[in-house]
Formats: sequence, structure tokens, C-alpha cells
Amino acid sequence: MSKFSTAAKRLLVGRPFRSDRLAHTLLPKRVALPVFASDAMSSVAYAPEEIFLMLSVAGLSAYTFAPWVGIVVVVVMLAVVASYRQNVHAYPSGGGDYEVTSVNLGRKSGLTVASALLVDYILTVAVSIASAAATIGSAIPYVATHKVEFAVAAIVLLTAVNLRGIRESGTALAIPVYAFMVGIVGMIVFGLFRAFVRGEEMPAESAEFGINADHGELTGLLLAFLVLRAFSSGCAALTGVEAISNGVPAFRKPKARNAATTLLLMGGIAVTMLMGLIVLAQVTEVKIAEHPETQLTGAPEGYEQKTMVAQIADAVFSDFRPGFFFITIVTALILVLAANTAFNGFPVLGSILAQDRYLPRQLHTRGDRLAFSNGIVGLAGFAIVLVIAFDAEVTKLIQLYIVGVFVSFTMSQLGMIRHWNRKLAAEEDAAERGRMRRSRAINGFGFLMTASVLVVVLITKFTNGAWIAIAAMGGLYALMTAIRRHYDRVSDELIKAEADRPSVLPSRVHAIVLVSKLHLPTKRALAYARATRPDVLEAVTVNVDDVDTRRLVTAWNKENFTVPLKVIESPYREITKPVLDYVKRVRSDNPRDVVTVFIPEYVVGRWWEQFLHNQSALRLKGRLLFQPGVMVTSVPWQLDSSSKVNERDTITPGAIRRGLTGDEERK
Amino acid sequence: MSKFSTAAKRLLVGRPFRSDRLAHTLLPKRVALPVFASDAMSSVAYAPEEIFLMLSVAGLSAYTFAPWVGIVVVVVMLAVVASYRQNVHAYPSGGGDYEVTSVNLGRKSGLTVASALLVDYILTVAVSIASAAATIGSAIPYVATHKVEFAVAAIVLLTAVNLRGIRESGTALAIPVYAFMVGIVGMIVFGLFRAFVRGEEMPAESAEFGINADHGELTGLLLAFLVLRAFSSGCAALTGVEAISNGVPAFRKPKARNAATTLLLMGGIAVTMLMGLIVLAQVTEVKIAEHPETQLTGAPEGYEQKTMVAQIADAVFSDFRPGFFFITIVTALILVLAANTAFNGFPVLGSILAQDRYLPRQLHTRGDRLAFSNGIVGLAGFAIVLVIAFDAEVTKLIQLYIVGVFVSFTMSQLGMIRHWNRKLAAEEDAAERGRMRRSRAINGFGFLMTASVLVVVLITKFTNGAWIAIAAMGGLYALMTAIRRHYDRVSDELIKAEADRPSVLPSRVHAIVLVSKLHLPTKRALAYARATRPDVLEAVTVNVDDVDTRRLVTAWNKENFTVPLKVIESPYREITKPVLDYVKRVRSDNPRDVVTVFIPEYVVGRWWEQFLHNQSALRLKGRLLFQPGVMVTSVPWQLDSSSKVNERDTITPGAIRRGLTGDEERK
Repeated sequence: MSKFSTAAKRLLVGRPFRSDRLAHTLLPKRVALPVFASDAMSSVAYAPEEIFLMLSVAGLSAYTFAPWVGIVVVVVMLAVVASYRQNVHAYPSGGGDYEVTSVNLGRKSGLTVASALLVDYILTVAVSIASAAATIGSAIPYVATHKVEFAVAAIVLLTAVNLRGIRESGTALAIPVYAFMVGIVGMIVFGLFRAFVRGEEMPAESAEFGINADHGELTGLLLAFLVLRAFSSGCAALTGVEAISNGVPAFRKPKARNAATTLLLMGGIAVTMLMGLIVLAQVTEVKIAEHPETQLTGAPEGYEQKTMVAQIADAVFSDFRPGFFFITIVTALILVLAANTAFNGFPVLGSILAQDRYLPRQLHTRGDRLAFSNGIVGLAGFAIVLVIAFDAEVTKLIQLYIVGVFVSFTMSQLGMIRHWNRKLAAEEDAAERGRMRRSRAINGFGFLMTASVLVVVLITKFTNGAWIAIAAMGGLYALMTAIRRHYDRVSDELIKAEADRPSVLPSRVHAIVLVSKLHLPTKRALAYARATRPDVLEAVTVNVDDVDTRRLVTAWNKENFTVPLKVIESPYREITKPVLDYVKRVRSDNPRDVVTVFIPEYVVGRWWEQFLHNQSALRLKGRLLFQPGVMVTSVPWQLDSSSKVNERDTITPGAIRRGLTGDEERK
Repeated sequence: MSKFSTAAKRLLVGRPFRSDRLAHTLLPKRVALPVFASDAMSSVAYAPEEIFLMLSVAGLSAYTFAPWVGIVVVVVMLAVVASYRQNVHAYPSGGGDYEVTSVNLGRKSGLTVASALLVDYILTVAVSIASAAATIGSAIPYVATHKVEFAVAAIVLLTAVNLRGIRESGTALAIPVYAFMVGIVGMIVFGLFRAFVRGEEMPAESAEFGINADHGELTGLLLAFLVLRAFSSGCAALTGVEAISNGVPAFRKPKARNAATTLLLMGGIAVTMLMGLIVLAQVTEVKIAEHPETQLTGAPEGYEQKTMVAQIADAVFSDFRPGFFFITIVTALILVLAANTAFNGFPVLGSILAQDRYLPRQLHTRGDRLAFSNGIVGLAGFAIVLVIAFDAEVTKLIQLYIVGVFVSFTMSQLGMIRHWNRKLAAEEDAAERGRMRRSRAINGFGFLMTASVLVVVLITKFTNGAWIAIAAMGGLYALMTAIRRHYDRVSDELIKAEADRPSVLPSRVHAIVLVSKLHLPTKRALAYARATRPDVLEAVTVNVDDVDTRRLVTAWNKENFTVPLKVIESPYREITKPVLDYVKRVRSDNPRDVVTVFIPEYVVGRWWEQFLHNQSALRLKGRLLFQPGVMVTSVPWQLDSSSKVNERDTITPGAIRRGLTGDEERK
């Protein structure tokens, strides 16, 4: 093929397809695990602690329920993992809960899940960063007493990094995630070894404290209610499990199978860490109270309660300080990474919703930095509001968190049941039907579990803050419905318009070049206008100043343009209205003509120069567009400063999750 | 002349000239006086009071200086009036101090005056409204204790009224101004009659109080300094005298002579009121102190000092309460009108400065409401800041006020001396030369007086706040110089560009229609593009979603458009960059072609709809304009909601001052 035709082909089809080009950037399981697991794994930093904390309300004796609560959380977790393995196989396109629900349960359910997910992303940032602040505060007391300021600063920093555009790379993500896994699992193994093999005592700093029940001893129903509350807080450990189901396309082939395996691996590790930490907490006799000042007895004056993980690390590595600091650092790091996943996921979900016209269309094109920036700033803003409103207290924020998570879990599993029912109706092969029935059973079990958790969460958390999350979801649902309704209305309007008036081809083009001075931008506009060879071509100027206008007319006549210059009078020294009136007259004289107005414009490079140029032109253009049968053509004149505007970077957050590694992303 | 040719003429020249059309709306003297005098006359509401207040610092004995200070103020006032009568005759175009200074002393001096005038307008609002608040506070104690809130509310209200657009009419203005004149002059006559003819006692409520000197008795130089300070505060009475010199074109013929007569009339009335109030203050023994709490002796507990005018009215109309309330109401009204003159004058001065390219060009066209609105909001914002910063205290604000006023007075008189020198050099006729010499002598005397006052003001007020006004003037001067420099640079750039590259006529037009969907807006864009008969016409779509794109291509082929649809791949789901790259390639293949990109756009009527439409198009357009050799054509599709946008009102503030009465302004 000749060189020319290659160039022609490039011109015609642009760059080659993404799918061809980026195949080699797909993730092997060992890289996919850290990429998708930070959110789910990071929750073991706070979930077990929250179980103890909730139980503390009933006094120290209630701590005996902790392992049992932990086991139920593990059961739910395994059920959810098993369920999502079915999702992954059934929807390898990576649409996630929103797709599964929309397809199987309809638009409204899909939108409910979308609202829940959007709220979740905000809370992921707030909870993860609040927990990171508490973790660092366990090592540095100054941070503990300035948690809110620290958390806000961290969110601002994360926002700045994401606005600037970070190039994620699987390797860079892998290091802290594996370090966290090695750290926590290593600590558990070492701790259990010390306790049960060597039989050593490992008292935590709070081992000798007592815990007063908040409202005296609880019994019967009240105690059961409290245990359920502890359980629903513990279910925070499940957040982030669904991440892999959104990222199936980024896996190496066989995609669905690799994703399912990774999901299982992640579930196994999370469950191990969760139960290990609960056992270690009992061995080291950590005492965590909801209100340390009033509940803890025997604590020294001014005692600042550290996180459970920090206290365990302190006890297990008693004399080996680097061990404690390692655990603290990797825990804080993975929590920040978890927050960062929200910064990646939020705009991606936004773009999917925009494609379905629930959000402004321009969010649809993912390469668009500005739309991404708006999403990122909005996410950060809401997260900061939450952090400030709830004093960066993980315990308070978690009350809001779990509702949204389990709304999407439950809806998604219900959708999967429908999915299998539909498939079963169409499938004849017995073996295949058997597999489908098995899958349906798993999703059905998952649905039962998650629905039960959702009910428990709603009952035990509603007045504690879950209502805020539900209200926010309702608000988002209403907003997105309204946006969709608007787009539908516009679409109907166009269809109706098409039926009403079959498009009439304009017969002639009447070109008007707007002239304010006779300088190069005007001459260029005139030359371009002439190049379009319109049926009528005229130059028009508005007389806002007699002297200037007379000078302009003289100069015009000298130039021998052959194009007539018309002067429109403007008794009130306006520009817009006289031009509008003139264009209207041209239109009404020749209704089948299309009028094209050429406006010379300066293109400037510095933001403040915008205020000094083109303002009248912009406003005129805005008004002209309201006239039917009028086109507005901007003829730019690039001032020297415009060359200072460089091409913006086009790195987009979340690229790696879509199967693009950093270097490819940059082209 | 046939009907057709009349229509053609209308088409060609638009509406008839302003000057022909609006001649009959010019102002007779009896209407011009109230229109231009509110600012100057309103200052007698606070100027005499400030004289007493400043003198009070030296104790009660210093009050004896008050009439002498008043007489010197009157002398300066008469000198200024006489000087401005010369200005009016010499510059009947109404350019005012800025024109006189720019023409005679050069750009930098003109800009200095402009900076001073802009600062003055802000202070006119702040001082007038603060004084109005004090006046109303004298009748309604609640306002006195909430002066700041009241003043801010008043400015906000005035802003809203001006943003909405008020139709000024000479008659409407005349009523409160004449009522004020009648009220104050009537009070003076009645008071003097009671005191000197009937020999009645008219003690003010503060007549029996004593005044302690702030720092003990002052003597020698310190006392002289204090008297000079009192004098410079009294010179606040002169503010607004220059207003008529800006409005000469609005007078009936002979314009200059009528304006000069009105100026003299205004000066006479102002002087009468000023001296009358000072005499009445002495007769009624009003005591006004700068710090009433510490300085006044014999005052009852919790005494709130009322304004001098209110105390005089109280004393003169002792049992006749309506008299007191009449004076209070008309005084407050004229002060609000004075503030309103600033709302009119500020944008007018802005438009003149924009014409000279010291402010953004778009402020130049006076009919432009948006530019006016920005000016009005800016003016109000700064005035509110001042009112809050200085607790709505007239005494504090006046320290800032007088500098600017006397900077422009002095510069203007200096300019006039130059003017006459130049004229004298060219004039041969002896009688004419005599008249010119006389005029020069008057302006010279005015210059001496105003320059002396300026020096006194600078010495006595600098540390009390005048430095703020000077710093603000400096800042404005720097800003306007920078703006002018920018425009000059652009202008140079264009001239250089013209020399460098003689404009090359583009040989062919390559038209590209951007397509995202195949709907009516796209079809219209295509039809319009085809109507312009370009050399090459093609449709281009960016593939951000394979399914959508395939559907579009199928639909396109069905329609038999004869225009090819090219698909540009976008591996990262961007729109802007692939289109830019494509356009660049077209340009580099055929450098002499001009590319015109047709973008279908929705035109919407509700502000929030903007967020849902055209955002990608707008950003693409913004980027395309940076490409040389590219035009961007917007092809609008008017959605139904767009018809809700009505033509905005085009009433502009200050119309009456330019010789347009309300009804004419509306057409």
C-alpha cells in the first residue's frame, strides 16, 4: 500500500481501535488484586473495631459476643463474594450493580442503585480518610487532637493530586497493598504464635481498664438490638467487595474466570484478617469504648483512645517499635488508597449515568478533563462537609455508610435472580440449566443475606444518621430523574418538530461581516466570508460614535473592498439591539435566505485578557443564536499570547481500572 | 419618494440620529437645577455639622470660629462656581474634569482625575447614605442604633432599583429637590424671624450641654491646625458642584449660558443654606461633639446625639412637629438622590474611560445593560465595604471623601489655565483677549483656592483616612494604565502583523459538519453548510461509543445525504482532541484552504438548561479558535424554552443627564 493511502486511511479512521491497541496492558491477577482490593481490604482497619465499640455500650461483658458477630459478618461476606462471582460471569462487560439492576429490574431500580453508589463514593472518602486520621493519630498524638483539620487537609491534597492527574500504575499500587496484607497477616501469625505457641502474655495498653455500660446492663431485646447494631457496623468490612465486578474488562483472559478467582482470593484474605484481628483483640484484651472519657475505668488522666489495630500492633510487637510503625503506616496508606478509588470511580459512574442521560451529556465523554474536575471537586466538597459535620469520627460516619452499600448489594442480587430466571426460561440444556440453578441459588442466598443486613441496618441505624444517607439518595434520585425528563422532553420536541415542518433547504446565503474597526481581524473575517462565496455579502458597522464611524467609512472607501459597508445607527449607543433588528429585517425581507453573521474575534491566552476582548461580540452572538435562520461564524484572530496555551494533559483518573496503564494513557 | 425606497433608506441608515430626535427633550433651567443639584445641595446636610464637630475637639470656646470657617468655605465655593462657569463656556460638550484635564495637561493627568472621580463616586454613595441614616436616626432612635445595617440595606435597595432600571424624569426629581430647598430655606427664614424679629428663645435640646476639649485646651499652632481641619471638613459642601459641567449638552439653548446660570443659582442657594444653618446653629446653641459620650457634659444618661439639622429643626419648629418631620424626610430624600447620582455617573464615566481604552472596551457601548450592571454592583460593593469599615459614621467617611474631590477640582482648574494660555497665544482680537484674560484670572483664582484646600486637606486628613482614598486612586491609576498598555500592545501587534504578512486570500473552503446524532439540529446544520456551497463538504463524528456510532452510520447511509460521514476514532473517549487533530491534518494537507467547522447548538431559555446542553460543543469551539485558518460556525436550534427569553429592557441609568427623558429612552 502506498504511503499516501495509509495517510488517507489514517485520516479516515483516525487512530486504531482501543481494543487492538491496549490488549497488552490488561492486568494479571497478581496486579489486579491490589488494584481492586484496596477499598475492600482497608475496611478491616475499622470494621472489627466498630464491632467492639458498639458492644462496649452494654459494658465489658458484651465483648464476648464479638467473635460471634465476626463470624456472622464472615458468613455474609462469603455469601456476597460467592454472589458477585456469579455477577462477574454473567456480566463480564463490567457494568457493575448499576448495569445488573437496570437490565433486570428496570430504570427506576437502576437509578436507585446509582444514587446509592454516588452517596457511597462520598462516604468512602469520608470514612477512609477519617480512619486514616485516627490511625496516624495513634502514633502521633498531635494528629489525634486535630483529626478534623488533618482529614480535611488530606482530602484537599487528594483532590489536588487527582485534579492534576495521576498516572496510576499497577506496580505502584501493588506495593502498599501487599505491604498491608503482609503486615496485618504477619502480625496475626506472629501474635497467635506468641500467645498460643510461646504462651506469652501480650497485654494491650488498655488491657487493665474496665468498661462501664452506658445505660446500665442491657438484657433481652435491648441487648439483642445492640448486638445487631454491632453486626451492622461490622458489615462495613464488606464495602468495596463489588469493585472487581466493575473491572472485569481490565483482566487478562479468561477475564471472567480470572476476575472470579481474584474476588475469591480477596474475600479469603479479608475474612482472614477480620477474624484474626478479632481474636488478637481478645487475646490482648484491648478495650475500645464509644465514649472513652465516661465509659473507661482505670484509664490514666487525659487518656486518648488509640485505634484497635494500633493497640494490637503495640501489644504484639511490644518491644519492636518498627513493627508498630510499619503497621500504622501501611494501614494509613491503604486507607488513603481506598479513598482514592472513590476519586476514580465517581467520575466513571458519572460518565455511565451521563450516557443514560441521567446526568449532563458532557460527562459522557470520559476524556473531558473539565467534567472530571467538576466531579472530583464535588466529591471532595461533600466529603469535607461530612468530615466536618461528624468531627471526622469513623463511628458516626459509618452509620451513614452501610445503608447505601447494602442497597446496591441487595438490588444487584435481586437483579441476578431475575437474570437467571430469564435465562432458565430460554435454556434447554439440562447441564447448563443445572449450573444456572446453582448460580441462582447462590445469588438467592446472597440476596437473603444482604436484604436481612439491609433491614437490620435500617432498623438499628436509621435515627443514628442513616436517614441522612437515605435523604441524599432520594435527592440524587429526584435530580437525575429531572435531568432525564428534560432530555426526553427535548427529544420529543425534536421528533414533533420533524413531523411538523419538513426541513426546508435554504435557497440563498446572506453573509454579514460585523466591523468595528478596519484592522487585520476584520480583514481576515472579510476574506474568509468572501471565500465562502455567499449570494449577498455586506459589511455592517454600528455607529456608536459619530467621529469613529466617519473615520471608519473613509478608511473603508480607501481600501476598495468592493464590499459595501452599511452603517446602522444606534441612538442609544448599543450594539446588540441594532444588529439584531437589522438581521431580523434581512430575514423578513427574504424568509428563505439563511443569514450568516461573521464576527471577528480575538483569541487570547491569558484568562484576564478575556475581560478585555470580545465581550460585546460574545453577548451579540448569544443573542443572535435566538434568531431563527441565522448562523454565527467566529473568525478568530490569534494574538501572540494565545500561543502560550499548551495542550492540556489528558490523563484521566481511573484509567488503570479500564485496562489502560499509565504509559499507554499518555499515548 | 416611494414606500420601497423609504424602507431601503431605513435599512441602510437605521433609526434617525439621536441629535435630531431628542432635541425636544432638553432640559429648561428649572428642571436642570434639581436634576444636577441634588449632590451639591445634599452636602449642606452634613458639611456645617462637620465644622462644629471638628471644632468641638478644642472645647466649646472653639465654636466661635464656626462662622469664620463657614465664610471661608463660602469664598472657596464661590471661587469654584465662578471657575466652573468658565469650564462650562469653554467645554460645552460636557466632558467635565476628565476631558478638561486630558486635553490640557495630558493623558497622565487625565487618568489621575479619572481615578479621583471613580473613588469619589464610591464615597458619594457611602457618605450620602451614612448621612441619610443619621438623619432618619434623629427621628427614629431604632435606626440610630442600627445605622450600619440600615445604610447597607439602603445601598442594596438602591442597587436593586438601579439594576432593575429606573426611568428618571425631571419632574419626579424636581419634587424632592425643591421640597428640600423650600424646607431648609424656609426653616432658616422662619428661625431668623423668630430669633431676631420676635426675639424668641429657641434652645436646641443640647443647648445647655457643655463640651470638654478632647485633649485639654488647644492653643497656637495646634488650634490653627484644628481650625484648618474643620475647614477642610466644611469643604465637603463643595462636592457635586462640578456635576453641571458634565451635563451641558442636556440644557436648552443657549446651552453653555443656561448651564452657567444654573450653576450660579445652585451656588447661591447652597451658600445661603450653608451660612443660614451655621447662624441658626449658633442661635439655637446646638452642641455637636465628635465623641458625645466623653465630651458632652450635662447630657442625660444614654443621650443619642442627633444631627445638627435635626436639632435645629426641632428648636425652630418647637411645637410644630410636622415641620421637624418634613425637614427630616426631605433631607433623607435628597441624600438618597445624591447617592443615586453616583449610580448614574459611575457607569457614564466608565464608558468614557472605556472609549479611551482605560477600561474594558465593552463598557464603551452605553446601551449595554450587563456592563452597566457590573459597574453598579461594583460601586455598591465598595460603598458597602466602606460603610461597614467606618461604622456608617459620616465624620470618618468624610476624611476620605474630600481628597478626591479637590484633586479633580485643582487639576481641572490648572487645565483651564493652560487652556486659556493656548487660546491667548492664538487670539488677536483685543476684546476677546480681554475676556480670555478675565476667564484665566478666575480659573487661576479657583486653582489657587482649590490647591490650597487640597494642601490643607492632605495635611490635616492624611493619617485620618485620606491615605486610603489616595491608595485607592493609585491602585485604579495603575490598573487603568495596565489595561491601556494591553490594548496598545495588541494594537502594535496588529500593525506589525500587517507589515509582516500581507493578508493572503484563502483559495478554497473546506466545510466540516460535526455530527453526534442524526436529529433535526444536525440536519439543519448540514442544510446550512450545504447552502454555503463549500469546495469540500464532509460530516464528521467522533466514535466515543462503538454501538452508538454504528447506529449513526447506518441511519446516515439510509438518509442518502450525498455528504460522506467520516468516523474519527477516539481511544480515550474524548471529543475535543480527535477533532482538533483532524482539523490540523486537513489544514496541513491544504494550507491555503480555510476550514469552517459547523457545530449544531441547542439554544435554550432557562439558565440551568445551559448545563445540560452544548457543553462539549462550547469547549470544542473554544479550542478550535486557537487553530489558525479555522472558522467556527454555530448553527442554532431553538428549543421551545428559548422563546421565553424576552428582549431585555434597555433603560440605562443616567439617561436624563444626557438629555434623554424617561419616555424617549424607552422608544
